[in-house]
Amino acid sequence: MGIKQIISDVHPTKQELYEIAQKRLDSLTKPRGSLGRLEEFARKLVAITENTMPVLDKKVIFTFAGDHGVADEGVSAYPKEVTRQMVFNFLNGGAGINVLARHAGAEVVVIDIGVDFDFNPPESPHTPLCKRDNPPKSPFIKGGLEGDFKDGRGGLFISKKVVMGTKNIRKGHAMTRQEAEQCIVIGIELAAEYAQKGYGIFGTGDMGIGNTTPSSAIAAVLTGKPVSEVTGRGTGISDDALKNKIKVIEGAISLNRPNPSDPVDVLAKVGGTEIGGIAGLIIGAATNRIPVVIDGFISTAGALIAYCIEPKTKDYMFAAHNSVEIGHRAMLEKIGLQPILDLNLRLGEGTGAALAMLIIEAGLKIYKKMATFAEAGISKNE
Amino acid sequence: MGIKQIISDVHPTKQELYEIAQKRLDSLTKPRGSLGRLEEFARKLVAITENTMPVLDKKVIFTFAGDHGVADEGVSAYPKEVTRQMVFNFLNGGAGINVLARHAGAEVVVIDIGVDFDFNPPESPHTPLCKRDNPPKSPFIKGGLEGDFKDGRGGLFISKKVVMGTKNIRKGHAMTRQEAEQCIVIGIELAAEYAQKGYGIFGTGDMGIGNTTPSSAIAAVLTGKPVSEVTGRGTGISDDALKNKIKVIEGAISLNRPNPSDPVDVLAKVGGTEIGGIAGLIIGAATNRIPVVIDGFISTAGALIAYCIEPKTKDYMFAAHNSVEIGHRAMLEKIGLQPILDLNLRLGEGTGAALAMLIIEAGLKIYKKMATFAEAGISKNE
Repeated sequence: MGIKQIISDVHPTKQELYEIAQKRLDSLTKPRGSLGRLEEFARKLVAITENTMPVLDKKVIFTFAGDHGVADEGVSAYPKEVTRQMVFNFLNGGAGINVLARHAGAEVVVIDIGVDFDFNPPESPHTPLCKRDNPPKSPFIKGGLEGDFKDGRGGLFISKKVVMGTKNIRKGHAMTRQEAEQCIVIGIELAAEYAQKGYGIFGTGDMGIGNTTPSSAIAAVLTGKPVSEVTGRGTGISDDALKNKIKVIEGAISLNRPNPSDPVDVLAKVGGTEIGGIAGLIIGAATNRIPVVIDGFISTAGALIAYCIEPKTKDYMFAAHNSVEIGHRAMLEKIGLQPILDLNLRLGEGTGAALAMLIIEAGLKIYKKMATFAEAGISKNE
Repeated sequence: MGIKQIISDVHPTKQELYEIAQKRLDSLTKPRGSLGRLEEFARKLVAITENTMPVLDKKVIFTFAGDHGVADEGVSAYPKEVTRQMVFNFLNGGAGINVLARHAGAEVVVIDIGVDFDFNPPESPHTPLCKRDNPPKSPFIKGGLEGDFKDGRGGLFISKKVVMGTKNIRKGHAMTRQEAEQCIVIGIELAAEYAQKGYGIFGTGDMGIGNTTPSSAIAAVLTGKPVSEVTGRGTGISDDALKNKIKVIEGAISLNRPNPSDPVDVLAKVGGTEIGGIAGLIIGAATNRIPVVIDGFISTAGALIAYCIEPKTKDYMFAAHNSVEIGHRAMLEKIGLQPILDLNLRLGEGTGAALAMLIIEAGLKIYKKMATFAEAGISKNE
């Protein structure tokens, strides 16, 4: 099924459902509106799910991994092989996203959508590479991971490789339009699959050395802001490296001439595979009426692509946090989302999404579990 | 034991412990500092507990309840009897704090420190009034609470009544100096008791119709700001009622002349019993090296009293959130705390503290459970 046909299934949420939720919130034993944004989250969940008693018990974070040809331009503090090394870390349960997803009661699914490495997965693309009893032998670790940190399972590996890394955007298009569309469709299909499996809330995440560079390029093209205003230090580069990064992005945009009114063109010319997968996942969440928590800077670049393809997807999005990356706020403002947390995070992987899920779920529990004034026999205000 | 002797046991946290924690954080598989404030929380927990692997498994929120004579001046949107009604709601598990504490894995302890109602508790002051199998018969509810919301136990009741509500501060002192000291000592003793029971983190909470009024009075006296700059709408009063509330507080301060350099005098003359209990709990947390999460406006008034008694208590505090109440920020700035969450909350009870505990715990899990670069065989930055 094509992207055009899919997006015709994205419907705006209904105002009357927000009102039904508000009515219940106002009957609970607290001053009206006194739980602030927790109440906002509850209303939004009711409207998204079209269920007056939404269920979020099964939660999943999708961490899309891809490499970037532009890493050759010295835009990152880390070497490119860290992408693949971190995939193994995700599968073994030792990464930030594993720890925080476990804390939030969410599963982690790691999708190889464009890593420049042959993971040589088992026969079925859906068979986990890693089981707790039988950890995979990472080529980077002598004898596999046996650390104390493994108090829970790692991520599930799904192979959906579109390319062995994107091409260097300083020298040409990141990928073909067909490849960009394929990335989006992969995200859409994953959303449909996990909706059918009964998952109630999705989170987005990313891994890809160099991927703040295409994200800043997307931010500049789709918000219309100068590159220097939406480009930050990523994993932590120096002043000189930041100047170079800005020049690389400016050069990539003037070379490739992405069309701001065609988000798939922008994704293909200056984007990345994981950003496309995230955009697709969000579109798929919207068509399946599943709330989706957007992580930080890279995920929001994906969300902005999804929003520009179909603005109604916004109704299904929660913005997890306000990233340290300076371009993040401009993208959130363009979509019209207010972040839930502000904790100076800049790790990605879906870490902010996992934390924000805990807060969103708190809003739902308030809505579902508090006593009403009538139930508790409490006097209402005068 | 007197307050003076107790505060001599409050020691500043040690810089070397922050550095030891930082060293571990920098060895984990993430760019340095990329988990922002989560890393700050982990360092602080190590320093507070003087344990390089802190344990926060047992968590408790102390919700101190007291009434306020000044409620007679029309400063609240709710009638005074709501304080006692809400105590029963806490014990039955239907209030916001019950829902959010369960979400955070924390227990709720409800302390009657000054409610204008005889709860007629069982013989032992530490016997819970409420058990799940045998809910108490609230005089306000026909047949007791039987709602669907009770998916978990309610709070534990502890009777430590100092007064049957404070006196009206518009007409005289809220309480005697001796009563104010007694409130603080009750908090200190509770902290010692729960530290001994093995609880790893405390949260503060409050219930008391009218208690934003003494909190604003404390804020004005101890920060030196005009009353109008630190007085808000509490549970949601009108413009006219807000003007009246400001006049009542100004009148109370000029009548009672609390001494800004004597925080116990301020507490006695324009404060409240629950605010004193919270101040004591924080002092007790500091002497026992237990991290304590300060809820919102009323709890921060208690924290400010504790800070003015002994500034070193600050090292043990986490500020849960930025309340809607306009005077909150001034008090946090005076203490030197940056709030963790900003969700437009204004309910109190400890609700913000419960939510913030989840985020603080996330920081600790990152610190304890993530793999190091060496463990995961990942390349470090160039």
